[in-house]
Amino acid sequence: MNISAIQKCINPDCGSEFDCGQAMFKCPDCGDLLDILYDWDKTTVPAKMSDFANRWATRNNPLDFSGVWRFRELLNFCEDKHRVTVGEGQTLLQQNDELAAFLGMDKGSLHLEYEGMNPSGSFKDNGMTAAFSHAVMVGAKSCACASTGNTSAAVALYAHACGMKCTVFIGSGRIAFGKLSQAMDYGANTIQIQGDFDDCMKQVQEVCTRLNIYLLNSLNPFRLEGQKTIMYRIIEGLGWEVPDWIIVPGGNLGNSSAFGKAFFELKELGLIDRIPRLAIINAAGADTLSYLVNERGLKWNGGNVNMKEVQALYADFTARHFSPHTIASAIEISRPVNLKKCLRSIDICDGIVRKVTDEQICDAKALVGRYGMGCEPASAATIAGLRDMLADGTIGKSERVACVLTGHLLKDPDKTVSYHKNSEGEFSNPPVESANDIEEIIKHIV
Amino acid sequence: MNISAIQKCINPDCGSEFDCGQAMFKCPDCGDLLDILYDWDKTTVPAKMSDFANRWATRNNPLDFSGVWRFRELLNFCEDKHRVTVGEGQTLLQQNDELAAFLGMDKGSLHLEYEGMNPSGSFKDNGMTAAFSHAVMVGAKSCACASTGNTSAAVALYAHACGMKCTVFIGSGRIAFGKLSQAMDYGANTIQIQGDFDDCMKQVQEVCTRLNIYLLNSLNPFRLEGQKTIMYRIIEGLGWEVPDWIIVPGGNLGNSSAFGKAFFELKELGLIDRIPRLAIINAAGADTLSYLVNERGLKWNGGNVNMKEVQALYADFTARHFSPHTIASAIEISRPVNLKKCLRSIDICDGIVRKVTDEQICDAKALVGRYGMGCEPASAATIAGLRDMLADGTIGKSERVACVLTGHLLKDPDKTVSYHKNSEGEFSNPPVESANDIEEIIKHIV
Ligand SMILES: [Zn+2]
Ligand SMILES: [Zn+2]
Repeated sequence: MNISAIQKCINPDCGSEFDCGQAMFKCPDCGDLLDILYDWDKTTVPAKMSDFANRWATRNNPLDFSGVWRFRELLNFCEDKHRVTVGEGQTLLQQNDELAAFLGMDKGSLHLEYEGMNPSGSFKDNGMTAAFSHAVMVGAKSCACASTGNTSAAVALYAHACGMKCTVFIGSGRIAFGKLSQAMDYGANTIQIQGDFDDCMKQVQEVCTRLNIYLLNSLNPFRLEGQKTIMYRIIEGLGWEVPDWIIVPGGNLGNSSAFGKAFFELKELGLIDRIPRLAIINAAGADTLSYLVNERGLKWNGGNVNMKEVQALYADFTARHFSPHTIASAIEISRPVNLKKCLRSIDICDGIVRKVTDEQICDAKALVGRYGMGCEPASAATIAGLRDMLADGTIGKSERVACVLTGHLLKDPDKTVSYHKNSEGEFSNPPVESANDIEEIIKHIV
Repeated sequence: MNISAIQKCINPDCGSEFDCGQAMFKCPDCGDLLDILYDWDKTTVPAKMSDFANRWATRNNPLDFSGVWRFRELLNFCEDKHRVTVGEGQTLLQQNDELAAFLGMDKGSLHLEYEGMNPSGSFKDNGMTAAFSHAVMVGAKSCACASTGNTSAAVALYAHACGMKCTVFIGSGRIAFGKLSQAMDYGANTIQIQGDFDDCMKQVQEVCTRLNIYLLNSLNPFRLEGQKTIMYRIIEGLGWEVPDWIIVPGGNLGNSSAFGKAFFELKELGLIDRIPRLAIINAAGADTLSYLVNERGLKWNGGNVNMKEVQALYADFTARHFSPHTIASAIEISRPVNLKKCLRSIDICDGIVRKVTDEQICDAKALVGRYGMGCEPASAATIAGLRDMLADGTIGKSERVACVLTGHLLKDPDKTVSYHKNSEGEFSNPPVESANDIEEIIKHIV
C-alpha cells in the first residue's frame, strides 16, 4: 500500500501541512492541534465495510488478527513493517437485552462495547498501537508520558513490545499506586516529581524535546487514528450496520474526536450512508465540555471556534484554584486537550453533551455489572447518560444505541467493593451474614 | 449434531455410566469422579484440526466467535440451543521472543497463553460456559458455589448471562473482598457463613441437594470439558501444530486434568499425531501433587490409584492442622479434588510435576510483566517452573513451550505494587523520586 497521509493543522487560519515522518504534536506554526489527513486515491480501500470480514479468515496474520490493523486501509499513515501489534482489539460488542429491558428499551436496541478487554485493560491500547507504529516509523528509541492511570499502562506495554525505553512521570502527593501497578510491572522507568500533574506535563515536554524522546501525550494525533477503530468494530459487531447513537464518556475528548473523524471519513468514502448521533457524557464534577456547549453555545463553526469563551473559563478555573473532582477518575479533566476536535465531531455527528452526577455513575456502573460484564466508573457515565436521555425522550426506546465501555472492571475494584458493601446505592448488593446452620442459610437463599 | 456423550465413573472397579441429562457431580455408586465420554461415531468431527479455521470466517455466529464453542464437536454433550456464550475465549497466544531470549531459549520457542483476557478475567470462563450449558440443558433455575476467588466471578457472570439465580458462599474471618468484588458486581447473592471454607463447601452441597440448586464446584466434569479448549486454542495459535511442552499451574488440578483429556481425545481422533509433555507446577506451600508424585511415586496405574498414600497424607494434614500457604492464592489448595484425573493426564502426557517457592513465583510474575502483558501470581508459577526446568536440562532451549497464564494482572494488583515498591525482588522496578528540576530529572532518565 502506498502511504497517503499528512499531518495538517486544524486551525483554518493556519492550515500548515507536514508529512508523517515527523514527530510533532502540535502545529509548530500556530500551536493548534494537528490532524491526520488521507489522500484516499492512493489507498485501495475496500468497496464496502463488510469486505473487512475477509480478514477474519486470515487471523493467523497478526495484522489481520488485530482489531485495529484489520482496518488498516482506514489508518494508512505507515507501512506494514512499522505497524506494532500485541493483539489489541479483541473486544466484545454485547447486545444486552436484559439491561435494555431494565431501561425500558426494545430488545436488540442496546449494545455495550467492552474496550476493557484490551491487553492493558482499557481502550487506550487502540491509540497506542497506532502511535507506537508512528514512533517506530520515525525511528524513536525512547518514549515518555505523564499519567497516573490507563495511559501509563498502555504506554509501558507498547514500549516494551517494540523495544523502546519508557519513562512515566508522576506527581507527588496523593498517588494511587494501584493505577500505576501496570506501568511498574511492564517495566517503565517511573519518575515521581515533587510537584503536581501540571508540573509533570511541563517537565515531560521539556525532557522529550531536549533528549529527543517520543512523547505519548493526549495531543498525539496518531493515537486518535487508532481510536477510530472502536467505531469500525461496533459496525462490525452490528453486522456492518451503523447504530443510531454512540455514547461515550468525555474526559480529554480523544475518543469523541476520533469517533467523529471515523464517521466523517467512512461517509466520505461511501462506506456508510448515514452518520450516527454522538452523545458525550461528562461527569458533573468535570463538565467543561457540557458547560461550553450547552451553556455558552460553543460550536465548531468550520474550525473558527470562539476560543475566547474557553480562555475565559480556564482563567476562571485558575482564579478559583478549581480542580475537577469525580469518582470517574479517567475523565476527571477540566481542560480537555482535544476540545476543538471534539467540537468538530459534534458538528459531524449532530452530537449532544450531557453531564451526570457521581451517584448516577456509580448506580450505572452497578447496572453494567449486574446485567453485563462490569466496567470502571468512567465507562458507566455512558449508561448514566443513556438513562437520562431515555427519560427525557432524547433517545427513543427502539433506537439502536452502542455505549463505549472504556475500561476494565478490575481497573478500580475498590470502588466496586465500597459501592456494594455500603448498601446505600440503588443497586448495592452487600453480602448477607448467616450462622453456620443449614436452616438459617436456606432462609437467605432468594 | 447428535449428542453422543455419557458421564462415566473414573473408578475402574465401578465404571457406572449415566446420561448427561442428569446433574450429579460424583458417582452415586462409589463417590469417585465422573468423566465425560464421547461416542465419536455419532459426531461429525472435522478431519483435521485446521478445519476449525473455517469458523473464523463466520465470527458473526456467536458459537463460532466463542473460543470455546468454535470447537464444539470436541465437547458435544449438549445441543446448540443449550450452549451458553458471553464471547469467552478471545484469548491471545503470544510468541514472546524477548522473554525467551532472557531465559536463554531460542527465538520462536516460548509462547504465553493469556487466559486472563476472558470476560471475568480468568481461565474459569472456559469451564463455566460449558458447565452452564449443561445447567441449562438440565433445566436448572438457580446455581451456587463456594469460592472467594476467580470461580465466584465466573459463576456470577454466567449465572446472570443465562438468567439463573446465583448464590456464592464465603466464610467469615480473613476475606479478601477485592476478590469478591466481581461476584457482588455481577449480582450474585453472597452469603457469608460463620465458619471456614470447609464449612462453606459442606453447606453449599447440602443446600444444593435440598433446594435442587445446580452446584458449580470443582468436581463438575463439564467444566473440564470447556477447559480442554485452552489446548485447542494453543494449537490454533501455533498454526495447528502441537507444542513440545505445556506448562500449567497446579491447584485443584482441573486444568491439568482437562489438558491431558484433550490431547488423549485428539490423538484418538487422529487430529494430532503426538501428545505434548505436560509440566504441572505447584507452589512449595501447597505441594500435595508434587509430594505424592515425586516422593511417593503415585501413579494413574490404569485407574487403580493407590489412594492409601493420599489418605495417609490427608490424615497427616488433619493431625497437624496443616493449611496450605502461598502468595499464589489461586493454587493455595492442599486437597486437590481432581487429583486422580490429573494423574491420568500425567500418564497420557508423560507429565512431570515441579514445585517453586513464592519468591520464584513473584520474580517470574515480574518477568511476565516486563516482557509480556502481566498475570496474577499463580499464573507465573509456570514461568518459575520453566526457569528451573531449563536450568536442569529437563526442557531444551529449542523446545516449543506454551505456558498457560490463568489469570489477569489486575486480579491481584496489591501483590504487583508491593513487589515493585519493595525493591528486594530480582526484577523490582520501584519509582524514583526527583526534585521538580529539569537537570535532576534528566539524570534519572535511563
Ligand atoms: Zn497551525
Ligand atoms: Zn463409581
